[in-house]
Amino acid sequence: MTAKTWLLEEKIGDFGKRLGRDAVFTLGNGYLGCRGFFDEEQEGAVETLGGIYMGGVFGAGALKAWEGMHRELVNTPNFLWTSIKVDGEQLLQRPGKVSSFKRVLDMRRGVLTRTFVWTGAAGAKVKVVFERFMSVADIHYAGQRITLQAVDGPVSLSVSAGIDAGVTQHNMVTTLPLPIQPGRRQLDVLAVGEDTIEAKVFTRPDGVTIDEGQLLTFRAEGSSGEKVKPDSTKTRVGANFSARLEKGGAVTMTKVVAFFTSRDGDAKALLADALAAAPSYDDLLARHEAAWAEKWDSADIEIEGCDDDQRALRYNLFQLMQAAPRHDSRLSLGARGLSGEMHEGSVFWDNEIFKMPFFTLTDPEAAKSMLIYRYRTLEAAKKHAKDLWFDGAMYAWKAGVDGLEETEVGVGAYYAIHIVADIAYALRQYWAMTGDDAFLFDYGVEILLETARFWKSRMQFDKKAGRYEIRAVRGPNEYDTIVHNNAYTNVFAEQNIRSALEAIAKMRKEAPEAWRKLAGKCAFTPAEEKSWKSVLGRMYIPRAKDGLVLEDDAYLLRAPFDFKRGKVDGRRVVDWALPLEAMPFYQITKQSDVVTLMNLFFDRFTEAEARKAYAFYEPRTVHDSSLSFAPHAVMAARLGMTDEAYRYFRECAYLDIADTQLNSISGVHFANLGGTWQAVVFGFGGVRASLDGTLEVKPHLPSAWKSLSFKLHYGGDVLRIVVKGNKATVENLSSAWTE
Amino acid sequence: MTAKTWLLEEKIGDFGKRLGRDAVFTLGNGYLGCRGFFDEEQEGAVETLGGIYMGGVFGAGALKAWEGMHRELVNTPNFLWTSIKVDGEQLLQRPGKVSSFKRVLDMRRGVLTRTFVWTGAAGAKVKVVFERFMSVADIHYAGQRITLQAVDGPVSLSVSAGIDAGVTQHNMVTTLPLPIQPGRRQLDVLAVGEDTIEAKVFTRPDGVTIDEGQLLTFRAEGSSGEKVKPDSTKTRVGANFSARLEKGGAVTMTKVVAFFTSRDGDAKALLADALAAAPSYDDLLARHEAAWAEKWDSADIEIEGCDDDQRALRYNLFQLMQAAPRHDSRLSLGARGLSGEMHEGSVFWDNEIFKMPFFTLTDPEAAKSMLIYRYRTLEAAKKHAKDLWFDGAMYAWKAGVDGLEETEVGVGAYYAIHIVADIAYALRQYWAMTGDDAFLFDYGVEILLETARFWKSRMQFDKKAGRYEIRAVRGPNEYDTIVHNNAYTNVFAEQNIRSALEAIAKMRKEAPEAWRKLAGKCAFTPAEEKSWKSVLGRMYIPRAKDGLVLEDDAYLLRAPFDFKRGKVDGRRVVDWALPLEAMPFYQITKQSDVVTLMNLFFDRFTEAEARKAYAFYEPRTVHDSSLSFAPHAVMAARLGMTDEAYRYFRECAYLDIADTQLNSISGVHFANLGGTWQAVVFGFGGVRASLDGTLEVKPHLPSAWKSLSFKLHYGGDVLRIVVKGNKATVENLSSAWTE
Repeated sequence: MTAKTWLLEEKIGDFGKRLGRDAVFTLGNGYLGCRGFFDEEQEGAVETLGGIYMGGVFGAGALKAWEGMHRELVNTPNFLWTSIKVDGEQLLQRPGKVSSFKRVLDMRRGVLTRTFVWTGAAGAKVKVVFERFMSVADIHYAGQRITLQAVDGPVSLSVSAGIDAGVTQHNMVTTLPLPIQPGRRQLDVLAVGEDTIEAKVFTRPDGVTIDEGQLLTFRAEGSSGEKVKPDSTKTRVGANFSARLEKGGAVTMTKVVAFFTSRDGDAKALLADALAAAPSYDDLLARHEAAWAEKWDSADIEIEGCDDDQRALRYNLFQLMQAAPRHDSRLSLGARGLSGEMHEGSVFWDNEIFKMPFFTLTDPEAAKSMLIYRYRTLEAAKKHAKDLWFDGAMYAWKAGVDGLEETEVGVGAYYAIHIVADIAYALRQYWAMTGDDAFLFDYGVEILLETARFWKSRMQFDKKAGRYEIRAVRGPNEYDTIVHNNAYTNVFAEQNIRSALEAIAKMRKEAPEAWRKLAGKCAFTPAEEKSWKSVLGRMYIPRAKDGLVLEDDAYLLRAPFDFKRGKVDGRRVVDWALPLEAMPFYQITKQSDVVTLMNLFFDRFTEAEARKAYAFYEPRTVHDSSLSFAPHAVMAARLGMTDEAYRYFRECAYLDIADTQLNSISGVHFANLGGTWQAVVFGFGGVRASLDGTLEVKPHLPSAWKSLSFKLHYGGDVLRIVVKGNKATVENLSSAWTE
Repeated sequence: MTAKTWLLEEKIGDFGKRLGRDAVFTLGNGYLGCRGFFDEEQEGAVETLGGIYMGGVFGAGALKAWEGMHRELVNTPNFLWTSIKVDGEQLLQRPGKVSSFKRVLDMRRGVLTRTFVWTGAAGAKVKVVFERFMSVADIHYAGQRITLQAVDGPVSLSVSAGIDAGVTQHNMVTTLPLPIQPGRRQLDVLAVGEDTIEAKVFTRPDGVTIDEGQLLTFRAEGSSGEKVKPDSTKTRVGANFSARLEKGGAVTMTKVVAFFTSRDGDAKALLADALAAAPSYDDLLARHEAAWAEKWDSADIEIEGCDDDQRALRYNLFQLMQAAPRHDSRLSLGARGLSGEMHEGSVFWDNEIFKMPFFTLTDPEAAKSMLIYRYRTLEAAKKHAKDLWFDGAMYAWKAGVDGLEETEVGVGAYYAIHIVADIAYALRQYWAMTGDDAFLFDYGVEILLETARFWKSRMQFDKKAGRYEIRAVRGPNEYDTIVHNNAYTNVFAEQNIRSALEAIAKMRKEAPEAWRKLAGKCAFTPAEEKSWKSVLGRMYIPRAKDGLVLEDDAYLLRAPFDFKRGKVDGRRVVDWALPLEAMPFYQITKQSDVVTLMNLFFDRFTEAEARKAYAFYEPRTVHDSSLSFAPHAVMAARLGMTDEAYRYFRECAYLDIADTQLNSISGVHFANLGGTWQAVVFGFGGVRASLDGTLEVKPHLPSAWKSLSFKLHYGGDVLRIVVKGNKATVENLSSAWTE
């Protein structure tokens, strides 16, 4: 039996609320994400929308993108579709019908189960167990098992199981936490076979085709009159099983599904092979569990002292691990992963700053794959820069598969350029922590070079003050429309240039031939190198008289914000108190800005500076973003304010479980998942992963925790770090080295 | 015969282009505006959209307004609708069918005529003359006369004439210069009577009803078989006349239309009375012409030396004069008047700054009526301020009939607050030029008090520098997203407070009882008065080291803009070169900003300052707005740069006639009409209307002009000013005073 700290359990009486919890119970394997929706057909369209998203499978969206076409994640065919009738009555989740309800996510095994007892209108009682998993060992397979048992008298039972391609979008086309409701259709069904179905995304000229197939087994005990017959429609492939169960009799349906898209090659042929070679349900599940055991062995964090925190933390790690598209470097990880339609599956800066440290230090292969995604979109970033009269590469604020800027027109993506240096930071950190020179020379240097080039063209030199400035930007505090000299952006930009110079120097020395080729391709000149060097140490970091690092050069000039009037509960200030336009008038910070900067550049700022910044910005921060709690936890822990840090840790660790942002319905907050890991490892664990390649550990455990232990990948080795109180032990599991 | 300088003539062969010219030939009377569309039914919906807009008649629009409901001007029933058949063939404006085409606007008389010869498929030739006017003497009447004459052999003729309520919107719902195309329907037809029709705007809960009726007369000569019969449909009331014309025979249809809406009272009853008492076409026209003669007598400007300029200038005055809603203080003048749907008939800052000086100095009653419109919307402005946590009254950037902020959400109306002080400026100027104390005490003081109060709460005091600052604003240069300390806004705000203090002092002294009542109503305290006084002389005006007045406190820090790359022709920079978001990165001024400031506050800045500002900003200004040429003409003329001024004068005087902004199709640019007047009177005429009530004349004529003469209303008197070269003669026509 799995220990409680591995189980996320839910016993919700109000079935109307369950849609809001579907995203929390998402299962995935990087290839697809499957929300925790109910398998069995419900009356009413809203409850039968499914919710399975595949990486890279996009349809045309409803908004106007800056570049190219606005995209949205396609709700792909629901391969868990079932319809159950007991004594002719549809089995529905309705008050009074269901008892002993339990939905349980077993995070150790990656399995979701749901059990309940259902009572029919005439008193028939059936015990129902649903089980599902998305194989992380064989990413083109998933499994589903349903058991129905007659609790009292005999019942006649009818179970249909199929793949339903008649689904529509959940209609979450904006960043607002809209309730799920039936939306646009994205799929045309091309063919319904005996066990297979083929559909095509018809809303885009380059729409992919999706081929899926199912293998069904029905096993009945204590039953009579079993009958299996086809049950397909124009948009669904399926089969129906019917039988009469005696009291105590049971039927079990197991289903193995296989799925491919035209992004994988000849999807139809691949599917046929996969169905022919399909493992049994039990074998598939066993391999899946073994793969999860390996994942956990690498990335689990053990906490002694608080089981709730242990479970919540594991939930965050679980969602992160299962979502990484480590099989396909054409993809990265969207803001909501594949757990919902919000942000349309697009990739933002938080991928590099919030999620990547986790992957770099626990699963470097996944990190590398996501960095190669950025390499693959480098040409799009170069075109974007050129179109805007800048040099080099300007990565899109909101990137889809092709790297085009998918931000809606007119909301300020032109200013939110710190994304460019965020990518360079993650790349530099990956290189520092892994020592992966091959990656650096094959991909990294070119990204660093083109992004450094962008920054040089985007900054201005103030001759009088003898410093470089970057004007018209928007930092992580998204309540700013435009600011000038955002400290975060300026420090990151300078580092981008420094990283480029370091990487070029290394490549020039260690791979001179490849470098000559690259320098020629990029038309890189000594004059350019010299101009970059002139930036180092001369970037303007705005400060107050007392040394306080300023979010931007005019933050102090703004009017004080009346927090008692404007922030009275969990709602965002801009959703009820004042319009977004009003925010730049005030000293108000939507989400961690300088605090995040200092967390990431801990070796550039003194502890006194960090303390001063925290004391100033924390009361001015409204946390109207899920990207705010974790950085506060990290810094508070590092500063030894462990109670404060612990409070912030709980804000991030339970964010989706408790739905504190009021929009988990639209998907799990992936940046925050990575932030939770950082709160624990960088905060309480005190790990300092410097860009120069050093790794330090200066822990500060909260009083509720007795110990903390986790593993990190570092320079090709695996370290085990065990923290007790303020003491850490570091053990190198790859060699015999211990500290 | 009217002299050529009174006639705007057009002989356009390409009938596809005529829609683009309809707005230019708009006739109106303040009650309604009627585009110069063709009377006769054309095949194809686009050509039969009509285009008659009534002040205050709005339907629900398609966008999301900040406050209340987004509105659009309703395309009201087309009361000029006709359908003509010659020998059974529809008379269409098609290439090859029409010769000797001429559309002529007689500006002296306010009459539009259109003549051509039409040739049928079988060779029948008909000479056609259309004539129309919207009575400015009796604003609920319009007249239409059509004459058809058989040029060669006999023809059989069928003429239907009616009021067509089946029109739809022109579909110009955005600020983009969309081609006209059939859009939403706004009208429900309630009743079709014998000669009347009643329709209701159904898209708004408070939609108005419109009642219209027509009186038709057919007079035929050299004809036989005349027959008149009803020709109504469910959405149209009309009659049909048919006859056979001999060669040279002719038929003349005259129509007198009357129109009312529920905004006028019981529209049906009013219409019945108006039809019963309707004058004949000839009498109606005679009264209309007499009224125009009076208008011209008051506002005409005579130029000796260039007939083209004379005609173009008269065109600008003509459109301004006929559009003023001087009969109804619930209305003001929209950005496109009633000549098109762009900007949805809403009122912006240019009303007060560009158009009001013309009315204040030539038609003070019209000016007063528009100021009372602002008084009527004062409560809405107070609510707007309160909702945004400010005191006093914050007038909407884009105001409809009720003063609510109709700007779409998220485009920065929060920043564009100079509108508030622009209204106060126009009010102060009206008071200074008219000495209308009654208006001041009844309406003006309260507006000045509440707007001053707004400014005091919107500004911040910088203790160290000892000055007031206004942050997070957008000045007239709309390419800025947010700037701080926009010189224009700051100077205007300070003047707003100064005007309030002056007005209060006057009222306290001259109408103490009324003042006590008002002070009580507004809860005005001595402490508040004192705090206002602290602002005077302490408002920050950003300047460069060399004294250059800066558009905003960071203008010089921006990057230089490559004008050769970004502005190569008449297109707006943001429509093809770079996105709007990029503009704040550059030293680029969309439209006159500091230049307009210095024109209006000529006594606050020295000539050297003005010269410096002009030299700096003129090359940085792209004139991507119609609000830019005129201020440049004014300043260049005042600085004695008459060639440059003349070049800019021509840009504004011919702007709509030549459609240089490429969007006159969507309506005439009313701010520019007023700007043209200012270019001539304030620029070449050198008139300086100071807020302290003095009027100076320092003319600089362009070399192309021999003389210039015009009248101004000043302190209740009428002055005639005649300029020859750099010499002006001022004659007081009301008393015997001459200078």
